[in-house]
Amino acid sequence: LENKAIEQFRNAFLELHPADQVDLFSRLDQEKRARVYEYLSPEEFAAIFEGLEVNDQKEIALELDKEYAAEMFNNMYADDVADFLGELQEDKVSAILKAMDKEDAQDVKELMAYEEGTAGAIMTKEFISIKATDTVADVIELLRREGPDAETVYYLYVTDEYNKLAGVVSLRDLIIAATDEPIINIISTRVVSVHENTDQEEVANLIQKYDFLAAPVVTSTNELVGIVTVDDVIDVIEEEATEDLGEFSASRGATDVNVTAFEAAKKRSPWIILLMFFGMITAGVIGQFEETLEAIVILSAFIPLIMDSAGNTGTQSLAVVVRGLATGSLEKKGLFKILRRELGTGMMIGLACAIVLMGLIPILYDGNILLAFIVGTSIFLSLTISTVIGATVPLIINKLKLDPAIASGPFITTVNDILGLLIYFSIATSLLQYL
Amino acid sequence: LENKAIEQFRNAFLELHPADQVDLFSRLDQEKRARVYEYLSPEEFAAIFEGLEVNDQKEIALELDKEYAAEMFNNMYADDVADFLGELQEDKVSAILKAMDKEDAQDVKELMAYEEGTAGAIMTKEFISIKATDTVADVIELLRREGPDAETVYYLYVTDEYNKLAGVVSLRDLIIAATDEPIINIISTRVVSVHENTDQEEVANLIQKYDFLAAPVVTSTNELVGIVTVDDVIDVIEEEATEDLGEFSASRGATDVNVTAFEAAKKRSPWIILLMFFGMITAGVIGQFEETLEAIVILSAFIPLIMDSAGNTGTQSLAVVVRGLATGSLEKKGLFKILRRELGTGMMIGLACAIVLMGLIPILYDGNILLAFIVGTSIFLSLTISTVIGATVPLIINKLKLDPAIASGPFITTVNDILGLLIYFSIATSLLQYL
Repeated sequence: LENKAIEQFRNAFLELHPADQVDLFSRLDQEKRARVYEYLSPEEFAAIFEGLEVNDQKEIALELDKEYAAEMFNNMYADDVADFLGELQEDKVSAILKAMDKEDAQDVKELMAYEEGTAGAIMTKEFISIKATDTVADVIELLRREGPDAETVYYLYVTDEYNKLAGVVSLRDLIIAATDEPIINIISTRVVSVHENTDQEEVANLIQKYDFLAAPVVTSTNELVGIVTVDDVIDVIEEEATEDLGEFSASRGATDVNVTAFEAAKKRSPWIILLMFFGMITAGVIGQFEETLEAIVILSAFIPLIMDSAGNTGTQSLAVVVRGLATGSLEKKGLFKILRRELGTGMMIGLACAIVLMGLIPILYDGNILLAFIVGTSIFLSLTISTVIGATVPLIINKLKLDPAIASGPFITTVNDILGLLIYFSIATSLLQYL
Repeated sequence: LENKAIEQFRNAFLELHPADQVDLFSRLDQEKRARVYEYLSPEEFAAIFEGLEVNDQKEIALELDKEYAAEMFNNMYADDVADFLGELQEDKVSAILKAMDKEDAQDVKELMAYEEGTAGAIMTKEFISIKATDTVADVIELLRREGPDAETVYYLYVTDEYNKLAGVVSLRDLIIAATDEPIINIISTRVVSVHENTDQEEVANLIQKYDFLAAPVVTSTNELVGIVTVDDVIDVIEEEATEDLGEFSASRGATDVNVTAFEAAKKRSPWIILLMFFGMITAGVIGQFEETLEAIVILSAFIPLIMDSAGNTGTQSLAVVVRGLATGSLEKKGLFKILRRELGTGMMIGLACAIVLMGLIPILYDGNILLAFIVGTSIFLSLTISTVIGATVPLIINKLKLDPAIASGPFITTVNDILGLLIYFSIATSLLQYL
């Protein structure tokens, strides 16, 4: 009877798409999970493990029998194993690698050697390469044999005797060719490849530009070492978007919803406290103008307006440049051109704001024209400067080969706040005698 | 001689990948472009036109001979034509549709009828559907005939006699099957489809979750009307990321680098001016406490610190929720749970900041303990409130089926600024007698 129940479970469960198996599995408690390990082979469980988030993987790995785990790792895609092991301590990593099959462990080690964020680190090793001298029938036979293990079979990369990339044949080309046709007749030799150390964002832009389903990864000597598939690229794009947004909201690496309040506070408070120290600097700057403030108390009412406007325009420029760099659309334009444009944009926005304020303030503040003049002039100057800073800083950081998003919104905002307030109080102080 | 030059140009140019043809073409001046139209057939030029940005398309369309243009539109993918026509005025649209082949124009009209942002609006009509009674050999024959026109051939959707979706066969399954096998033997009937009105972000999440290369789009009666391919999905993800970032930086729809300074200012200044009006409200709020400020001028020095800290923590919470909603990871958690977590996180960050400030201010400001108390208490209360507001507002907006990102960073920041300053000055005013 129990055997029959197991059969029923296996039939129903294995018919599900792996992504749905993962969803179902993550809702089970420990006792039920233990039964899943019992009912499924390590090979079958590998597909579930691959789909789990890293924190869950760590927990589950502890529950697994050592041999079961080793067999599971052997049956996972090498890049998924490498991603998981990258999160563990060194001694655990070597223990797992030792327990795995030599060949599989070797693939994993090679992948782990790549720096994070490169094509090598996101590529898969399970791909099918063929020879130019094969016939279409040979390749179809190979696909029948090895197809199920490969991550994609839609592009078949052709290599020469030294394993160097010679061309590509799509499954589309293959299927419409006669079976006795040699591959060399249908090969496309204009194959776009990426170097193993290419930045993952660049790989994503390339695959997106050409609408590829995969791209081959080669060494400096054009040796084929792996492929990056379109689903890896989607993950990269999501990851970069989350990262960019994190930078803009001072929450780098802290937008995860699956952590406790304490963990979230631990990750997020350093940013807030760091930015608060900048706030202390701003307080110091304002403190320097205490005399001016004592003379014209109403000046302090416009501190938020000056700060926010300078901050917002700077962030706009930053967003334009960061998105432009991420999508590659900025490189087509000259850098000088974009700076000149931002300067022009800043002056025009500044002028528009100054006109509005100079009209409104005398009405709202008993005809105080000098206050209107101070605020209006300050807004024009500070918006002009803050667009230029918002655009220049990420460009410089990018030139230095760093991620432009580290010039994150809040930091540029703080710089622009301080400059804006300096302009504001300097103008006010020098005009104090007329008030 | 001239004919020979044309042949040479055609050979070299057409050998390029369409994406590279687009790059090359966009660098040409009007005279050279005119020669391209002459040398390439409308069918060949269609691939270039598809790859251009909308503004360039509009310019180029004016340069083309009417018949040439109509023939080009006939040879473009219907979804690309629909995207382009969606940017034109109605009279121009109907003129172009009238000039096109009836069948092609019909496809375009159907696509244009869908609301922007739905599966129907991003799907392609050029897909291959097959019958369950076909044999593998029949399908391969069909692919030889129709393959070049279809956007993807890697998934073949099986429909019944009423054009209802019955299953899917991947090219991978097809190639490893025997040629006389009927499709019904290799069909997978557990096919995941999306409704034509499904939100594009949901389609993207689905394709990403299952690592699909395409998803079929069906009507309410399960009739197959189109497919969404993975490259469309990448564009959607990029678009949504740009949109989210735009919201966070008060530059919705204005992160384009390819516009003049004046156009950029025209698009961006309304945000800045709108936010400046909020700044006027803040100024009004501070103005209410003029007496308190006159008594303790140094209070104004901490206005930026209170504002920035409240703004930054609120934006963090906003980023967590917006990202969580976009990637779907929030739905797995309860909404109440995430609010409780954000409240806890806010209190902890607030407490940490309060402790730092209460320690630092007496040192920096001549042992002014009451100032330290006012600033410390205010920061604790305002950070607690701003995390809750930052998390609640996008959740409410999402419940109302609006895009959560319209609760954009700057707006939530402004609300939190005003609340933070109200708390600050209220505490200061009520403690005024002790200072």
